[in-house]
Amino acid sequence: MFELLKTDGSARRGTLTLAHGTVQTPTFMPVGTAATVKGLTPEELRGAHSQIVLANTYHLWLRPGRDLLVEAGGIHRFMAWNGPILTDSGGFQVFSLQERRKLDDDGVTFRSHIDGSEHRFTPESVIAFEEAIGVDIAMVLDVCVKLPAIRAQLEESVRMTTAWARRSREAWSRPETHVFAIMQGGLDPELRERSARELVELDFPGYAIGGLSVGETREEMYVTARHAAALLPVVKPRYLMGVGTVKDIVMAVECGIDMFDCVYPTRCGRNGRAMTRSGEYSIRNAQYTRDFSPVDHDCDCYVCTTYTRAYLNHLFRANEMLGPRLLSYHNVYVLNDLMREAREAIELGAWAAFRDRFFG
Amino acid sequence: MFELLKTDGSARRGTLTLAHGTVQTPTFMPVGTAATVKGLTPEELRGAHSQIVLANTYHLWLRPGRDLLVEAGGIHRFMAWNGPILTDSGGFQVFSLQERRKLDDDGVTFRSHIDGSEHRFTPESVIAFEEAIGVDIAMVLDVCVKLPAIRAQLEESVRMTTAWARRSREAWSRPETHVFAIMQGGLDPELRERSARELVELDFPGYAIGGLSVGETREEMYVTARHAAALLPVVKPRYLMGVGTVKDIVMAVECGIDMFDCVYPTRCGRNGRAMTRSGEYSIRNAQYTRDFSPVDHDCDCYVCTTYTRAYLNHLFRANEMLGPRLLSYHNVYVLNDLMREAREAIELGAWAAFRDRFFG
Repeated sequence: MFELLKTDGSARRGTLTLAHGTVQTPTFMPVGTAATVKGLTPEELRGAHSQIVLANTYHLWLRPGRDLLVEAGGIHRFMAWNGPILTDSGGFQVFSLQERRKLDDDGVTFRSHIDGSEHRFTPESVIAFEEAIGVDIAMVLDVCVKLPAIRAQLEESVRMTTAWARRSREAWSRPETHVFAIMQGGLDPELRERSARELVELDFPGYAIGGLSVGETREEMYVTARHAAALLPVVKPRYLMGVGTVKDIVMAVECGIDMFDCVYPTRCGRNGRAMTRSGEYSIRNAQYTRDFSPVDHDCDCYVCTTYTRAYLNHLFRANEMLGPRLLSYHNVYVLNDLMREAREAIELGAWAAFRDRFFG
Repeated sequence: MFELLKTDGSARRGTLTLAHGTVQTPTFMPVGTAATVKGLTPEELRGAHSQIVLANTYHLWLRPGRDLLVEAGGIHRFMAWNGPILTDSGGFQVFSLQERRKLDDDGVTFRSHIDGSEHRFTPESVIAFEEAIGVDIAMVLDVCVKLPAIRAQLEESVRMTTAWARRSREAWSRPETHVFAIMQGGLDPELRERSARELVELDFPGYAIGGLSVGETREEMYVTARHAAALLPVVKPRYLMGVGTVKDIVMAVECGIDMFDCVYPTRCGRNGRAMTRSGEYSIRNAQYTRDFSPVDHDCDCYVCTTYTRAYLNHLFRANEMLGPRLLSYHNVYVLNDLMREAREAIELGAWAAFRDRFFG
């Protein structure tokens, strides 16, 4: 299902063949938490060259819920996106609930942030949910730890994450859904090695590096991601969770990662923050009020070829919902286009030069 | 510039040729107050078969302001809508400001609702603004009255509106911009006649019926609109301001009106209210949670052919911005499609039967 086409240094160029289409890697996955990438239609996601969309088990479980998604004919039909979908397991969300969740060896009980109702995730119930709604890639339920953390906590998270991964592997029954494991271990190299060894032994179709982008410094993240990626099988896809700035993505590709997701481009878009290859800026700033140039001079997206900074500045100042829409579109386009360029650079053996454009 | 192609009873079928295109009438004009129809791109407005868009002088005057719109190359380029644009004069908005405005014979001074800054509208300054930003149809500054009103108030509003219309007519200098007068007179037939007579004498390219949809009953509005329309020249386009429900539009066409505008379809769309030819409903209602049929069974728009009521119900319950977007699109499409059917019915001499479908 994953084919590694070429490497250039540690950077990798591959294809990921899934039930709803083939994904060219490295790839960025925009986040559609509640079965919608905020503000964008499926046609716009395609227009912005998105290949695969992420949704979240925690949110979908609570609303609209499994039964409704099954009745709808699955999540693809429900949200009218016919390309590949990956669901995060909800592990990260549940562990963020803090006092509203109770962990035991078998699973985790938590209260909904929407209505306070009680729910329970087990490795089996999460996989069953993801299979029932028909996703292409299902993440296992993992045990996350917020950084900084003491070693005993990290060790326990690795132990339980492996045990749950094993149960997830056994619970997996639907061939069209590929189940990916999630590595833990914080910033501890020895624990990362242990987590990788235990999960690789279970032979999953793909592996995510979890437990990063959770409070550590950027430098710490890079060091750990590089080390963690090298611990994973060459022939399996590697996914770094929660990464979505231009620099972080380029560095992650440099570390040998194939997939990324983040709410960052759409959240920035809603807040008036424009992403470009050469940096970010707030479109609300007074300096753009009379700037009739495009949002991003290096971009050929619909927004940059149709509207000016002055118009987007006006939309945001007037609280017009078209502003968040247009800027979300542009930001997603920028990351997808960055990935396209990264893939070309790797194919051409020009990765180092490409990477150095971002770390001058 | 207006050609009356056919009548069927009082209903009229015509074409309105403007600098940015020809409009088939009767027509509905979606409202883009601040140079954006809330939530929709120009491409979507076209996709929903919009022919002409309304914007508002009051709002544009305050933000982004005349100089910026001129620098941008006019309002069409600023908002990337290359079809016809009509601007309301801001009379209605300024008179809604109540204690924040001061009327004199020469004009009206008011304070911005945004930052409290003082501004002044005169008939001349409003026309100059509308011409400077390059609109296709410019409404004159009128003196509005909230209903119910005493006769002396209405009489004064007619007197001043005529005096200001005369000054607007004289101030008008740009051939690509057509200036429309606005009739006042409340529900008083004699005052409507006086207003019509005085304005028609000034020979404007088109006439609006103002001072309705401001607190009167629906029956009162119909009676006055019918009477008012009959007072206007057959060869000039007639515009009923602020009308935008399915029934009101059908009745207005029945009264011999050619143009309508209203924020209603987009405001409803943002609030989860779905418009159909057979009535309105709230998509948030529990009964639609598991309803996998389209928003409107009689509609072939993008939203109705792509998504289910269950999905839109989910989007609104989850406060996802895609919901307001999609429903606004559908609602605008419904009104435009209703207009298309109305035009066909008039062409075929089948207007009465069409009208009676809505008043069974």
